[in-house]
Amino acid sequence: MSASSQLPWLVANGSVIFESVGILSYALSGLIEAARKKLDLVGMVMMAAVTSFGGGTLRDILLDRRPFFWVENLYWIYVILGLCIGALLFMRARHLDFTERAMQWPDAIGLGIFSAGGTQIALQAHMPPIVAVVMGVLTAVFGGVARDVMVVEIPKLFIDHQPYAVLAFTGCWIVVIGDSLHWPDFVSLGLSAVFIIALRISAILLGWRLPVWKV
Amino acid sequence: MSASSQLPWLVANGSVIFESVGILSYALSGLIEAARKKLDLVGMVMMAAVTSFGGGTLRDILLDRRPFFWVENLYWIYVILGLCIGALLFMRARHLDFTERAMQWPDAIGLGIFSAGGTQIALQAHMPPIVAVVMGVLTAVFGGVARDVMVVEIPKLFIDHQPYAVLAFTGCWIVVIGDSLHWPDFVSLGLSAVFIIALRISAILLGWRLPVWKV
Amino acid sequence: MSASSQLPWLVANGSVIFESVGILSYALSGLIEAARKKLDLVGMVMMAAVTSFGGGTLRDILLDRRPFFWVENLYWIYVILGLCIGALLFMRARHLDFTERAMQWPDAIGLGIFSAGGTQIALQAHMPPIVAVVMGVLTAVFGGVARDVMVVEIPKLFIDHQPYAVLAFTGCWIVVIGDSLHWPDFVSLGLSAVFIIALRISAILLGWRLPVWKV
Repeated sequence: MSASSQLPWLVANGSVIFESVGILSYALSGLIEAARKKLDLVGMVMMAAVTSFGGGTLRDILLDRRPFFWVENLYWIYVILGLCIGALLFMRARHLDFTERAMQWPDAIGLGIFSAGGTQIALQAHMPPIVAVVMGVLTAVFGGVARDVMVVEIPKLFIDHQPYAVLAFTGCWIVVIGDSLHWPDFVSLGLSAVFIIALRISAILLGWRLPVWKV
Repeated sequence: MSASSQLPWLVANGSVIFESVGILSYALSGLIEAARKKLDLVGMVMMAAVTSFGGGTLRDILLDRRPFFWVENLYWIYVILGLCIGALLFMRARHLDFTERAMQWPDAIGLGIFSAGGTQIALQAHMPPIVAVVMGVLTAVFGGVARDVMVVEIPKLFIDHQPYAVLAFTGCWIVVIGDSLHWPDFVSLGLSAVFIIALRISAILLGWRLPVWKV
Repeated sequence: MSASSQLPWLVANGSVIFESVGILSYALSGLIEAARKKLDLVGMVMMAAVTSFGGGTLRDILLDRRPFFWVENLYWIYVILGLCIGALLFMRARHLDFTERAMQWPDAIGLGIFSAGGTQIALQAHMPPIVAVVMGVLTAVFGGVARDVMVVEIPKLFIDHQPYAVLAFTGCWIVVIGDSLHWPDFVSLGLSAVFIIALRISAILLGWRLPVWKV
């Protein structure tokens, strides 16, 4: 395969690979929380599914857009079911903290991919820029909010003072700029996602914090 | 009335009767939880309404389907209001445990009717089989999940290790099989519902448990 | 400007002014709850946005109606962001109780405007009267319910025995009556809103209570 013919292959398959990494890490964060709360198999499946697909599903409901990602890509339903049964068989308490720390890196990929992708989908549905950016952020963060609320915890997103939604909000504007300058979709999407992922990794490594509320 | 002319009558009215038993038992489970938490009249109405109609409403939003059941069958809104006012006047703490235990049986009917019915509605909306089954299960269980989350309890569905959603998931495939074999709707619906109800009653009587998470 | 030409001006702008008072007071109630729970900037924005726009957004999803209010009136997104940044800079713990008490009055305006407006929008979408009234009440109260559930509190609406949703439910019927008698929209809307606001202020001043549950 020549170098020039590899680019489209990379564009097409790179996004699938990154998307899968994002979905799996979101699903695992649901599973870990389910294990902490000692939920049963049904609770595990619901937590994993809502954490990975909740954000995109909410975005599509708000945009009145069908079919949902998990209806178009049915195999993900089976992947989530298999993952939960596997976790039930093989996961132990001593894996939890380790897995959660290891998850930070693929989770950063999920944050970048889902927020940039959500923004682009909202622009394609003719939403104005600020709404598209809000939709992008919701796509990336709503699953985690629903995960926490379902097990009766204040959402980590709301309270941990870590830069997360704020980074997605910043980076989603790259998609908007790219769209207004008529860049090819994969360029603005890729730049925005990479920028958000880089910001998120910097935030983790350098210990960035949101400004503290003085109440 | 001859025996042969009674069959359509039974099919038409039997489903209405079973549906009513299901709705009322779901509404009562919302009311009982509201009473436990000492909610006021508004909280009671919201808990009863969300528990009985939350699942079907979520399914219809996901399928982009209107009108909702409670918009087509307005009288149910008045039934729920009347039930709550009646409970406010006549229900006492000593009724709660008894009512909850007595509710297990009609609740099993609700589980069968709502999950089989939800699956069929999703198939009619051209959903693929696995999605239709997921929609069926959500129809039957989402109301109870929302009921628990609204009063800040981890959903019983997620944590009590009782076979409930899993039984619905199993039995909903009968609707899918019946649909692919072109059985009349009421046959596949009836078989699936009866199978789920029988499984659920067995689970209660024989004390079946979901496999335990070893964390 | 003559007196007769002022009426249309008042009708057009009066509703914008009242609507703004309602939205801002709902947003502030989200902010106050966020401050109590020591949420960060992201939590503040989500709480303020969901409290003010959650009810109308749910109504529009149920009615399958687009665009949402906050998509049609984009500037509100910036107002909410600005409000939260301002609160982060200037709000202190000693402001909270005072602000909450002061908020009761504009909140009554929000209750009247949102429930009457929601009822009218549902009637325009050809909903039957009882459904339109339910939609009106949901428009006014769902934001506050979601606000409380997101920070893991039983919704005040469900448990404080204050007449709030019940007053909205009563007053929304004025919109239904006006609609059936072909009154101009602004007349039935205005009468209903004013009636609900007056009821709510009476309830606060006179200490009205919902009947107590005897469990």
